[in-house]
Amino acid sequence: MAAPIPDLPILAEDDSMLTRKFGREVANYFSGSPLNRVSFLRGDHGFLSSAFSHPTASFLLMENLSPLAQDPTKLAYVEKSIVEPLTGSDPFKKTEEELLKEFNSDVAFPVILFLGIDEKKKSGFEYKDYRGAPYFAVDVTPKGSITEVAKGVIEAAKAKGVSFLPGTRHITLNAPEGEIPWFFVQKTTPADIGAAAIYAQARALLDWNARNPFCGGCGQKTLSVNAGMKRTCPPTDLAGVPEGGAPKERGPCPTRHGVSNLCFPRTDPTMIVAVVSADGTKMLLGRQKRWPPYWYSTLAGFLEPGESIEEAVRREVWEESGVTVGRVVIHSSQPWPYPANLMIGAIGQATTEGETINLGNDPELESAKWFPMEEVRDALLTGTSGLGEAAPEGYKEGGLRLPPQTAIANRLMDAVTGGFLAASKI
Amino acid sequence: MAAPIPDLPILAEDDSMLTRKFGREVANYFSGSPLNRVSFLRGDHGFLSSAFSHPTASFLLMENLSPLAQDPTKLAYVEKSIVEPLTGSDPFKKTEEELLKEFNSDVAFPVILFLGIDEKKKSGFEYKDYRGAPYFAVDVTPKGSITEVAKGVIEAAKAKGVSFLPGTRHITLNAPEGEIPWFFVQKTTPADIGAAAIYAQARALLDWNARNPFCGGCGQKTLSVNAGMKRTCPPTDLAGVPEGGAPKERGPCPTRHGVSNLCFPRTDPTMIVAVVSADGTKMLLGRQKRWPPYWYSTLAGFLEPGESIEEAVRREVWEESGVTVGRVVIHSSQPWPYPANLMIGAIGQATTEGETINLGNDPELESAKWFPMEEVRDALLTGTSGLGEAAPEGYKEGGLRLPPQTAIANRLMDAVTGGFLAASKI
Ligand SMILES: [Zn+2]
Ligand SMILES: [Zn+2]
Repeated sequence: MAAPIPDLPILAEDDSMLTRKFGREVANYFSGSPLNRVSFLRGDHGFLSSAFSHPTASFLLMENLSPLAQDPTKLAYVEKSIVEPLTGSDPFKKTEEELLKEFNSDVAFPVILFLGIDEKKKSGFEYKDYRGAPYFAVDVTPKGSITEVAKGVIEAAKAKGVSFLPGTRHITLNAPEGEIPWFFVQKTTPADIGAAAIYAQARALLDWNARNPFCGGCGQKTLSVNAGMKRTCPPTDLAGVPEGGAPKERGPCPTRHGVSNLCFPRTDPTMIVAVVSADGTKMLLGRQKRWPPYWYSTLAGFLEPGESIEEAVRREVWEESGVTVGRVVIHSSQPWPYPANLMIGAIGQATTEGETINLGNDPELESAKWFPMEEVRDALLTGTSGLGEAAPEGYKEGGLRLPPQTAIANRLMDAVTGGFLAASKI
Repeated sequence: MAAPIPDLPILAEDDSMLTRKFGREVANYFSGSPLNRVSFLRGDHGFLSSAFSHPTASFLLMENLSPLAQDPTKLAYVEKSIVEPLTGSDPFKKTEEELLKEFNSDVAFPVILFLGIDEKKKSGFEYKDYRGAPYFAVDVTPKGSITEVAKGVIEAAKAKGVSFLPGTRHITLNAPEGEIPWFFVQKTTPADIGAAAIYAQARALLDWNARNPFCGGCGQKTLSVNAGMKRTCPPTDLAGVPEGGAPKERGPCPTRHGVSNLCFPRTDPTMIVAVVSADGTKMLLGRQKRWPPYWYSTLAGFLEPGESIEEAVRREVWEESGVTVGRVVIHSSQPWPYPANLMIGAIGQATTEGETINLGNDPELESAKWFPMEEVRDALLTGTSGLGEAAPEGYKEGGLRLPPQTAIANRLMDAVTGGFLAASKI
């Protein structure tokens, strides 16, 4: 999936006490962004304006949440001149305050996300202390009053020989991998190799904007500001007001008093856990009815309000399989932009008396079973593939099938069967 | 804050490989619920109806998100007869389908949460394989058409000599603590000792319901179903329809097609991190301007879409302090119901070249400083208190002040200064 990272003179930096004690950080697919988000600059319209207009700015187009791509592994970026018919030449000219004053709920704007800067590219773009090539994403989905212009932008982009990835879930884009110290990825990964993370950021944010055109607090239309990272509920509206007239007051809204989480993107924390038996020789896996035959995975579920990750792991495992989990250790995490999950990968151990499987609580799983570690290990080598894909070459009918390396489930199983639990210390 | 847990014959169960390797699970305040949520029964109206009507059912009243309490450490529960004027005698009689058909956006209902069952109480309540005393929470905030009835319920409850906790943030309620194996808490903690967790669950869910009366997808009013765990967007409305008339069709809504995360409670994942220096001798702490003098804490910030926990830690620490973090280990987690945070506690180590403090990126902190481990250790013993409280007895003016044990920040600092990082293995 990924090319090797070029020379890394700072590899020696990985000799930290935490690395010596816990081993290297695990690299999960969709993480490892090559961009510095400089999130504190998203409200700075001077910055956004000059980044948008810089000749080295890259624009990722997304149509119905599918990215423009050169091929299934590489995103395609266009220049400002291609998106300008849709975005205008300086969409960040006005401040949030000005945009609020001019809010007109009848006028549609495309959402434009500022994704970050690639500091590895000495592109000549500078703003205060920050240097690097700017990255944006633009929603070019044809709809409402921007339908025709958006279609024109799509045609102009396609004329360059690139196309939008078909399908709705994309796990073929390049991602960094291997034995690099994970915390140097942003500083060392070329943008092409970090494609999966750039796409994940853009997809999650455009989806959140598209799902939330209205305010949950008052039911009125909201306005996307802060380069796509905030939706605010304007106090006035120019819809239906004659040219030059005063804007109409809108109804009151609780989100206008103080800071409200409703205005900011939503991320749903989800636990996913490799449960090992009390004696450490078996792993608990489950399967849903709609999966292909012989396909199993680790158990997963959303966290609930007022619940720690560890409690959610024990609740979900008991509800779905009847197994009682004792100690839980959090292993690593993975952004999963379908639509807005944060997968929190854990390893848990069943209690001695709690290994009996019972599917009679929550009927979510069709089956849950204890698999010997060797069988899981073998299947990681011979039986992994994407959910919609055929079994890999060499797979023998009837053998255990597992999710691919792009899924954190795979990485958790790999960690456990690779010695994470061994009594000997790392 | 908590009484000791009574005899625990199953303590020996804690001798799992994960415990031997990583030590015991850390017990953070607001976690450790004494209830089994049996979440799969929330859609089962037969279950909810009989639980609601059982003589051993306990009802926690919340007024403007403040709980009814016996004293600052103990919640107070009332019987069904007290809440009945507000809830009716059988509020779960109708199924979700029936409630949707009868939806009338002009009629207000109080939100009634099913919190779970306390399986330690052999109360005589049975449903299929499940046994234990049922717990509910009821929003008795006087508002709209239920103002007068709600006031009556509040008066009837107060007549029993109990009252709603004053203030908006409560960290005085009992919680389990100490050297118990954390995963047995639900099975061993009396409901009185698990008060903080019950309150956290109720507060987070009532707040989510109160913040989201409208649908973010279409702007129309939503209906609370699934005992408070779901808000659904009905296709029809009886508002303004004469008695016996057919309900009016409402506008289309994207949340009615398939499963939408907008219908389910929101939890905002937030990282909080104890950063240690490359040589392990110092800890990075920061302070906000509004805090009392000499008060510092660990750095924290919300995760963004398309970002792993580990990436968010490195981004936020660099943005707020200029420090570059290498390896990140996730330590433990804490539900924090103000309003809906999941605090994910991490320990990170600065890179050798990345320890220089720079507050010039994100202006969130007034100060960030490296403190010697001994100074942090001393302050954990002599300088902790709640944010609004006076410094503890024995505190010397000018010394470092830190958050109390109820904050995960305190527990992270305790773990690090207590030897978490030591080169010797656990
Ligand atoms: Zn609003
Ligand atoms: Zn709706």
